[in-house]
Amino acid sequence: MKTIIKALVFDAYGTLFDPLSVASLCDELYPGHGSALSQLWRSRQLEYTWLRSLMGRYEDFWKVTEAALVFASRTLGLPCESPARERLMQAYLSLKPFPEVPDALRALRGYPLCILSNGTREMLRVVVKNSGLEDVFWQVISVEEARIYKPSPRAYELAARKMGAEPGAIGFVSSNFWDAAGAKAFGFFTCWVNRTNAQSEELGFVPDATGRSLTELAQMLTRA
Amino acid sequence: MKTIIKALVFDAYGTLFDPLSVASLCDELYPGHGSALSQLWRSRQLEYTWLRSLMGRYEDFWKVTEAALVFASRTLGLPCESPARERLMQAYLSLKPFPEVPDALRALRGYPLCILSNGTREMLRVVVKNSGLEDVFWQVISVEEARIYKPSPRAYELAARKMGAEPGAIGFVSSNFWDAAGAKAFGFFTCWVNRTNAQSEELGFVPDATGRSLTELAQMLTRA
Repeated sequence: MKTIIKALVFDAYGTLFDPLSVASLCDELYPGHGSALSQLWRSRQLEYTWLRSLMGRYEDFWKVTEAALVFASRTLGLPCESPARERLMQAYLSLKPFPEVPDALRALRGYPLCILSNGTREMLRVVVKNSGLEDVFWQVISVEEARIYKPSPRAYELAARKMGAEPGAIGFVSSNFWDAAGAKAFGFFTCWVNRTNAQSEELGFVPDATGRSLTELAQMLTRA
Repeated sequence: MKTIIKALVFDAYGTLFDPLSVASLCDELYPGHGSALSQLWRSRQLEYTWLRSLMGRYEDFWKVTEAALVFASRTLGLPCESPARERLMQAYLSLKPFPEVPDALRALRGYPLCILSNGTREMLRVVVKNSGLEDVFWQVISVEEARIYKPSPRAYELAARKMGAEPGAIGFVSSNFWDAAGAKAFGFFTCWVNRTNAQSEELGFVPDATGRSLTELAQMLTRA
């Protein structure tokens, strides 16, 4: 693989940073409901990005994330006005990286490393800073500039353009199968990080490589 | 309302026909798993329409429905080769209308009535025929012609064009909140049939009218 891939681009939420790491704060605010709230919040956050993109009604990821929180908390009957809402939104800026991420990224430093994320520039700047990974990335690319979310080809095209590379020379890494499928449809070399032993989605496109962790993928990608 | 609305267009799956009415066959084939299978099947079916549309990789609704069934059954560990798969797919052609649908549609016969659905022309022809509602509709419109799924404005635009009416003169009826939101964003007068006392989704667009059943909406729409 090393010979064809010139640079690596990572999805952020779900791949490098764990969106469900807000569950502990959710549970502190709503004892016994942390897991349900964080999961419904995350699933609606994704759905809203797809639906708004398809409707041609882009709103930035901060607003979409807050809208999903409002829906999820109301559906579960959990009051979520400030300061609780404010605290939960701020928690999104200090999501924890998955445990193996810092070491795996260090192992991959032979490649130029980028992020391509649905997050706003500001959300990404802060979450990367808070995780101590600032110096690791060559570019942190937000779909904000394309005003459409992944898996639109326009989102992946933005990254290819900013990186100045042919799609086939870019290795794209995501834990979200639908994101890996979208990247593959666009033309990236795609790697799926399947930490949860999930089933492949039936979207007509399959990743080029699959690993159970970023460490496992890093081993594949650094092999001579 | 009667004065501004010249024609009514209904979503099919979830609004007129109950996609979860396949649960009994699912349960016959996989005792104890009918509800889980029918729900996961339906949720992936919707997700795949959104994702494929956003990827610019349209596949027709029959193929998407089968792909979602393959994913759902594999995820739940239920073997789903033919003849089981074939039987479940065929069941999609005889989904039951919600109980109040035939009478409510009859009450609305003062309007030209249409369907705008993600389903293929053939799926719609058969499900409408099997439910005995053939004579009710002026037009049955499939997004197949636009090669993109709702809530893309191109899907709603297809209906407006075929009906030869201004969007604001078309009353659009859906039980799927995201579909009502997409139709509202496009410019239809939108009615949400909320049979399950669901929460509104936070998509930036809200329906013009909401009823707990099609009967309740029919009463609003036929009021002088």
